[in-house]
Amino acid sequence: MKRYEALADKIDKMIRQGMLKAGDKIPSVRQASSQFAVSPSTVFKAYYQLENRGLIHGLERSGYYVSEYANNLLPEPAPSRPPKASAKVKVNELVFSVLDAMQDTDTAPLGTAFPSLELFPHQQLTQSLNRANRKNVSLNGGSHIGPGDEGLRKAIALRYMTAGVEVTADDVIITNGAMEGLTLALQAITQPGDVVAIESPGFYAALQTIESLGLKAVEIPMDSQQGLNLESLETACKEKNVRACWCMTNFQNPLGATMPESKKRKLVELLGKYNVPLIEDDVYGELYFGKKYQRPAKTFDTQGLVIHCSSFSKTLAPTYRIGWVLAGRYYEKIRRVKLMTTLSTSLPAQLAIADYLNRGNYDRHLRQFRRLLEDQQAQMAKAIAANFPQGTKVSRPRGGFFLWVELPKAIDALALYHLALKQGINFAPGSIFSCRGDYRHCIRLNYGQPMGRITSAIETVGQLAYHLSK
Amino acid sequence: MKRYEALADKIDKMIRQGMLKAGDKIPSVRQASSQFAVSPSTVFKAYYQLENRGLIHGLERSGYYVSEYANNLLPEPAPSRPPKASAKVKVNELVFSVLDAMQDTDTAPLGTAFPSLELFPHQQLTQSLNRANRKNVSLNGGSHIGPGDEGLRKAIALRYMTAGVEVTADDVIITNGAMEGLTLALQAITQPGDVVAIESPGFYAALQTIESLGLKAVEIPMDSQQGLNLESLETACKEKNVRACWCMTNFQNPLGATMPESKKRKLVELLGKYNVPLIEDDVYGELYFGKKYQRPAKTFDTQGLVIHCSSFSKTLAPTYRIGWVLAGRYYEKIRRVKLMTTLSTSLPAQLAIADYLNRGNYDRHLRQFRRLLEDQQAQMAKAIAANFPQGTKVSRPRGGFFLWVELPKAIDALALYHLALKQGINFAPGSIFSCRGDYRHCIRLNYGQPMGRITSAIETVGQLAYHLSK
Repeated sequence: MKRYEALADKIDKMIRQGMLKAGDKIPSVRQASSQFAVSPSTVFKAYYQLENRGLIHGLERSGYYVSEYANNLLPEPAPSRPPKASAKVKVNELVFSVLDAMQDTDTAPLGTAFPSLELFPHQQLTQSLNRANRKNVSLNGGSHIGPGDEGLRKAIALRYMTAGVEVTADDVIITNGAMEGLTLALQAITQPGDVVAIESPGFYAALQTIESLGLKAVEIPMDSQQGLNLESLETACKEKNVRACWCMTNFQNPLGATMPESKKRKLVELLGKYNVPLIEDDVYGELYFGKKYQRPAKTFDTQGLVIHCSSFSKTLAPTYRIGWVLAGRYYEKIRRVKLMTTLSTSLPAQLAIADYLNRGNYDRHLRQFRRLLEDQQAQMAKAIAANFPQGTKVSRPRGGFFLWVELPKAIDALALYHLALKQGINFAPGSIFSCRGDYRHCIRLNYGQPMGRITSAIETVGQLAYHLSK
Repeated sequence: MKRYEALADKIDKMIRQGMLKAGDKIPSVRQASSQFAVSPSTVFKAYYQLENRGLIHGLERSGYYVSEYANNLLPEPAPSRPPKASAKVKVNELVFSVLDAMQDTDTAPLGTAFPSLELFPHQQLTQSLNRANRKNVSLNGGSHIGPGDEGLRKAIALRYMTAGVEVTADDVIITNGAMEGLTLALQAITQPGDVVAIESPGFYAALQTIESLGLKAVEIPMDSQQGLNLESLETACKEKNVRACWCMTNFQNPLGATMPESKKRKLVELLGKYNVPLIEDDVYGELYFGKKYQRPAKTFDTQGLVIHCSSFSKTLAPTYRIGWVLAGRYYEKIRRVKLMTTLSTSLPAQLAIADYLNRGNYDRHLRQFRRLLEDQQAQMAKAIAANFPQGTKVSRPRGGFFLWVELPKAIDALALYHLALKQGINFAPGSIFSCRGDYRHCIRLNYGQPMGRITSAIETVGQLAYHLSK
């Protein structure tokens, strides 16, 4: 164990045992450095880890404090251990029945993959929609079957540049949400029968795309804090002739894990060594709770091997279906597949978002949105701690809007799912996040919803879980 | 030869030899029936054929007249004769360079697959966009990942119902243009290695989709007036284990052929016999020049075997990317593939079109648009007859906005294409409409463009063709 990890664990223990309480200020970096006889940089790294664990948070010019619900935190899920063999994927019917249940607006939506539409700046966006589309569309004539509106591509590139990721408008292809980008990427770089490395647990749509393209998946173990296990990934690359790796580097769905930038760099280097393209799904990247945007793996892509996909669907405008791809060396291939499948992306929504971004309101919206989500995560975690059976473990993502809950092994999450549905509550049962229907005692909960209804829903699910654990 | 065909040919000859001149009234059905000693129904059928050939047109309560440019008509291309073997498809690089050239707004756009944006009701659509999206989108919350906006699905179903095609809103899945619907359909019903029957010449995007899904194509001969050769299709079904048939039943791209309703019915029955699903691409169906909408093959689908795809991209709003699928018995499969690839279709554009349709302006726009296109076709055909080398043949579609031009065999259409590009003119060279790069002496021209520029472009292309024919 490294020195900073030992220090982080020491302070972690102090918080859990109640020696440091919610709201307490913890020693400054200088104080801690002298108190624990370690270098300031070791303290920094330890505090960074604790922040990632959701135990402390830094306040501008004031130091570090124990987080509000740190003492109530349930333990986190252990790293996953999927089987090592690659396998053909057969998506469960369950995924579709779960997705269908999410359509039911009378149901408390703990299952959906989107935040509530009420949390987005509908009025400002509509103003942008009107303003941007009033101009004569015929001016955009020539470009409407190209890679997307140039203004939007520039605005997207600018955000990356500002964050220190080298991107130009010419690298961007606008897609129908990130989903299309991810599908195009996989279509462009694989042949039927190829092996793709994916996260376990991982995003169900990745599984379905892999199935529909006749690919095989090898599931890589995940750490609930830091994501993909790189050793396992390297073994897979060596032994399985992996042709692509699909993962979420920030606030992974469903675990919420985020790779530190140094690990992202290692990921890119590792895949570069084996010449394996990385399909990076970063739709939650802007929803960080800490002070700083976590730059994606794309940042470290010197060979053009990273196909980075993102969208505005989780951060600004779910119904607009506007996403994008930074396709690296696969730009031309992906552009062509798009040209031959959906041709181009709906222009009114593109123009609206370009206008909205250019007006400079996005960052303000995001700041409010992140604060709200962080607050709601704390409330939901508290409610889970108070209502769920003993032995429950909960993830502690520092961004996004999902909690991954590991129930005591005896509880069948699918049975719980059906009981909850009857009570007008949906959530995502764990088995849809695996090729093999694993994670049968896990569930994914969405806290990006109006909280009144959510808290009582958590109580109900907790009671049902108690009932099932008997 | 049937009696009505003989009669049609007789009158055809009279027109071509100048005995009947442009503007002349031809005998009424009663007169012709007695004059030629055939039944009125035979005369009706013959006149229908002549109308389809572009030689005569009926005027409300006034009778039939020889069409304006009937005496100048060049002969039509002969039926195509593609090879009978099925083959893996490898799309030519050429397709993409042609598509890229179409992006160049400084070029006379005879190559594009869209009418000019100037021909669409931009202002009214923008009003609908504003009006429809002003309402709070959160009301559409539950439905935004479903099969599409219910109002739009209802409005689309209503149009079919009115035309005598039995469709309800529940049959409709909204897609990102017809292109997405066609791709989804093929994905949903085929496995790699399957054989798909397609038209030859046929739409290049069909070829690309077939290639990317690892399918094989068998090319079916086409008649430039009546489309697919059903005998050849049946032979292919018998001998090649065809798993899907993809065709355009109205104003086929690029030939402009339209199957009469009776032939569409036969097509559906034939495929039903072999249990082969029909993917019907009907994006040009609303752009008919005659008096009557030609109902699609879907009309005759009693088994749910027809997957009918269409869009507003060629008729109303190219940049909105709104299409739809009537998926028959494949509804659930196609819905699921969509859910896992693009999830749903951009909502602002859906709401705008629903509002526009509900205001009842679409039919008025279409009437004007059709008249304009018919007029422009005549102008372009005349310009071709005046400027192209002897031996040129031209299709005579009764709808849509493409002419298919068969140049004398000695002319290499690709060489012509490159020469024309240098003069700032693009068109679609014939070889992109074939798996094997056939139709090397053919070109497709788009007459849905502002005519001033087009006429002089045709002169230039004609001169270049003369030059090449020497």
